[in-house]
Amino acid sequence: MFQARLTETSGLARACLHGAIRDDGALADAMRYATAGGKGMRGFLVMESARLHGVNDTRSVWPAAAIEAVHAYSLVHDDLPCMDDDDLRRGLPTVHKKWDEATAVLVGDALQTLAFELLTHDAVGAARVSLISTLAQAAGQSGMVRGQALDIAAETAPMPLGLDEIITLQAGKTGALIQWSAEAGAILASADPKPMRDYATALGLAFQIADDILDVEGDARTVGKAVGKDAGAGKATFVSLLGPQAAKTRAAELVDQACDALAPFGADAETLRDAARFVIQRDR
Amino acid sequence: MFQARLTETSGLARACLHGAIRDDGALADAMRYATAGGKGMRGFLVMESARLHGVNDTRSVWPAAAIEAVHAYSLVHDDLPCMDDDDLRRGLPTVHKKWDEATAVLVGDALQTLAFELLTHDAVGAARVSLISTLAQAAGQSGMVRGQALDIAAETAPMPLGLDEIITLQAGKTGALIQWSAEAGAILASADPKPMRDYATALGLAFQIADDILDVEGDARTVGKAVGKDAGAGKATFVSLLGPQAAKTRAAELVDQACDALAPFGADAETLRDAARFVIQRDR
Repeated sequence: MFQARLTETSGLARACLHGAIRDDGALADAMRYATAGGKGMRGFLVMESARLHGVNDTRSVWPAAAIEAVHAYSLVHDDLPCMDDDDLRRGLPTVHKKWDEATAVLVGDALQTLAFELLTHDAVGAARVSLISTLAQAAGQSGMVRGQALDIAAETAPMPLGLDEIITLQAGKTGALIQWSAEAGAILASADPKPMRDYATALGLAFQIADDILDVEGDARTVGKAVGKDAGAGKATFVSLLGPQAAKTRAAELVDQACDALAPFGADAETLRDAARFVIQRDR
Repeated sequence: MFQARLTETSGLARACLHGAIRDDGALADAMRYATAGGKGMRGFLVMESARLHGVNDTRSVWPAAAIEAVHAYSLVHDDLPCMDDDDLRRGLPTVHKKWDEATAVLVGDALQTLAFELLTHDAVGAARVSLISTLAQAAGQSGMVRGQALDIAAETAPMPLGLDEIITLQAGKTGALIQWSAEAGAILASADPKPMRDYATALGLAFQIADDILDVEGDARTVGKAVGKDAGAGKATFVSLLGPQAAKTRAAELVDQACDALAPFGADAETLRDAARFVIQRDR
């Protein structure tokens, strides 16, 4: 039931995104390839938080497509040999393996640009500037890119990171975009974003703990990318710091917190509660 | 006289850009480094076209800073080993030489994000969405990144490009941002952008021909980057296709065209005419 709704809604965001990629040879092919797979969780969060705030899909599908473009750009660049050096993503060769590194750099660059272009669409309405400004903050030097820079610095640091440092790193690297996604519906409706922010803060951390657990316990074929990389590299993660059992307990507590934050919306928010539960139950 | 005005005005744009880079370790240092040098021609064009349209510096300095951020991001990524593989830029080591490739990828990414954030500043006013939308088109898959993709494809093509193909490539790679810069003042003033567009189309092409001439005739120490690369790589350029003398004649004709396009503004546009003349006289 939840899976079907996730697939259907993220499909709307992906169709919008693919409609905005102009047919232009290898670059466009690689942009479509880079945005073809994945769960589409961020775009789903945008559209569900919009629905919760009474905002139509015809408006919310643009920011949903935009956040999927930003997420895809970050993965394409993160997979580069000079970054995480991954050959496999979502069960398929990464962009620099299927094409080359130059194409991967340009695909990421063009997807980021496209994200901001999507947010200027007329249908988005009066919230356009606010969404662009908050997305730039979430994606840039104080958000996602900051998290990535901390992650890279940690690889050459003399000591593995501690728990507080991992939380700061992940709040940037994965948390910032998830938070923007959940808040986007409130911003579209000019409503108070606080409940969505509290939901997203807990959700983002649960999401990352679940990712760390998948890196240890997941199956590479199901997960669709290499697993065991963090432990192999001696990298500090929630699992290495807490142990697998305490990490699972912590993730479950965070999901409860995320669900509680939606109390003001009552039963209307059940889909977003399902999303939070899904985040720690998924196998990829 | 013109040089002094260029230095002063581009300094305003750079100060605005540097003020927006948050103090955050190596990433911020490398972002400042990547935006410290250069002529600042694009930001200058934004502010001068704004002045011509009666728009205050306090408004135009934000789009001026934004276009310099986009230009700097494109240089940092273009210099990467998987792209043009340059060690020297503006007389200093490129970002991936001074730091590393991962930092260069992230610096470029963060500078692009910052550009869009700068355009959301309140001072920019009602033109914000229009400037963001047009910048995304100029920088993305139909503009600059398209030009870069064509440039990379040309390196492995069986035949050198012809003149029409070089013009298409350069219209994307360097022309699109120069055109946006010149049109930004008209957009800020809600004025007809046609005269500025005609000016910029001629100027952008003259700029690129001058760059090709510098690659053949310039001194690496003055130019601040490696010269002779295009001829060494057997790459088709305006100089290789037209010969140096005809290329200079063509550039001078284009500057005349650019100046003529400003006729509706009379003597008020003299600074922008000086800018066009400067573009083909510069030695770096």
